Amino acid sequence: MFRAGGVQAVLFDTFGTVVDWRSGIAAAVEEVADAHAVAVDPAAFADAWRARYQPSMEPIRAGRRPFVRLSDLHRENLAATLEEFGWNLAPDEAEQLNQAWQRLPAWPDSVEGLLLLKQHYLVGPLSNGDTALLARMAKHAGLPWDVVIGADITRQYKPHPDAYTRTAAILDLPPSAVMLVAAHNHDLTAARQAGLATGFIPRPTEHGPGQNTDLNAEADWDVVATDLTDLGRQLTTDPEEIGTKPSCRPT
Amino acid sequence: MFRAGGVQAVLFDTFGTVVDWRSGIAAAVEEVADAHAVAVDPAAFADAWRARYQPSMEPIRAGRRPFVRLSDLHRENLAATLEEFGWNLAPDEAEQLNQAWQRLPAWPDSVEGLLLLKQHYLVGPLSNGDTALLARMAKHAGLPWDVVIGADITRQYKPHPDAYTRTAAILDLPPSAVMLVAAHNHDLTAARQAGLATGFIPRPTEHGPGQNTDLNAEADWDVVATDLTDLGRQLTTDPEEIGTKPSCRPT
Repeated sequence: MFRAGGVQAVLFDTFGTVVDWRSGIAAAVEEVADAHAVAVDPAAFADAWRARYQPSMEPIRAGRRPFVRLSDLHRENLAATLEEFGWNLAPDEAEQLNQAWQRLPAWPDSVEGLLLLKQHYLVGPLSNGDTALLARMAKHAGLPWDVVIGADITRQYKPHPDAYTRTAAILDLPPSAVMLVAAHNHDLTAARQAGLATGFIPRPTEHGPGQNTDLNAEADWDVVATDLTDLGRQLTTDPEEIGTKPSCRPT
Repeated sequence: MFRAGGVQAVLFDTFGTVVDWRSGIAAAVEEVADAHAVAVDPAAFADAWRARYQPSMEPIRAGRRPFVRLSDLHRENLAATLEEFGWNLAPDEAEQLNQAWQRLPAWPDSVEGLLLLKQHYLVGPLSNGDTALLARMAKHAGLPWDVVIGADITRQYKPHPDAYTRTAAILDLPPSAVMLVAAHNHDLTAARQAGLATGFIPRPTEHGPGQNTDLNAEADWDVVATDLTDLGRQLTTDPEEIGTKPSCRPT
């Protein structure tokens, strides 16, 4: 099953690439808003909550704040977003809403693509989510991961290079034997700099109907596919050739 | 899927409980011995190699040696066992033999039991193996883990209490919401002391035909079953009651 040479593990950015965070969070927000008869735009709330995601990790990546799990950052960011929207929620309701990140829906092609890839590669997330969150999300959405190494285990957030290289080291693989698949060009840029192979799929509605970022591959990624099923077919048709191109060796 | 109260994750001792290390290692030893026309008793070699397992972890548990992954301890122990048997192997052949720990066969009931439990609980190993070894073993033997947290992640070996409590913490669960299943009474004693729920199954031929240890449950473990299929049936028939007995609360 583990082929000599080339890529042995195919790991995935998760939020946006494998699961649809915006629809999942908006649905959870709508449910709570309806129960309280509060007028709030669920998608706008989801966007505002998610907008605090990158800024909240930055002090940790820069070494100005000790490592904090993403579920805890999500909780802090939810409190700030509730305040921004002038919305009071009881602590247990806020906690329940925070757990919506564990119940995000998979994109329609995700499970099929992972099942294809799982026949030939070790599959898992390479996400900023923590292991507990990612394991529960997988259980809920039926994602058939072989292994779940959250950012609480590497103690670093992407796109810091340690997030990629430490994950490969835990799998006892050189970075070049690991492929990151993502719907985000910036994540792949960092993964390639860390020595990983790269795969791109577009998720043109991750940010809603008006999305104008990451609609296309912006570099010569090792594999470019239309979705995870297509990626699974490409990587299982001729797996020996993946990861052997000069472009996916460490630079 | 994750039930409020009671046990939410069922984790497993792996070597001996889920997979048959002695048969697997003896078969790998026999293959190498046959290739070299060397006369060696494969089961005796497997027993001698495994006999170095607990002593090699002891300096690490006692804090006298920095943490070393089990695959590396296995490699050191193999070198000592080869010397004990007066057997020279080329480094690449020794390395190949060391990887036999990644290809151990599951006991006949293991996969069926895990699939039953997976319907209601988060399932994973709680083993002294490292994540890379355990993930490859699962791939080879078809063990359907939800999550794989090796000892290289907790940085401590069972039966040190940190091995159990750190695993529960990574899953964001209190120890009482985690059950350890093992064929070894001493492992369950340590797990109970760390606050975990406990499940026992016997593996009466783990050490070969003359085994006289761990043939029976030696304490009032929360669940006692004949094998993993039986354990799966018991824990999925009335899951609400598991883990709510006073005996499996932290003492």
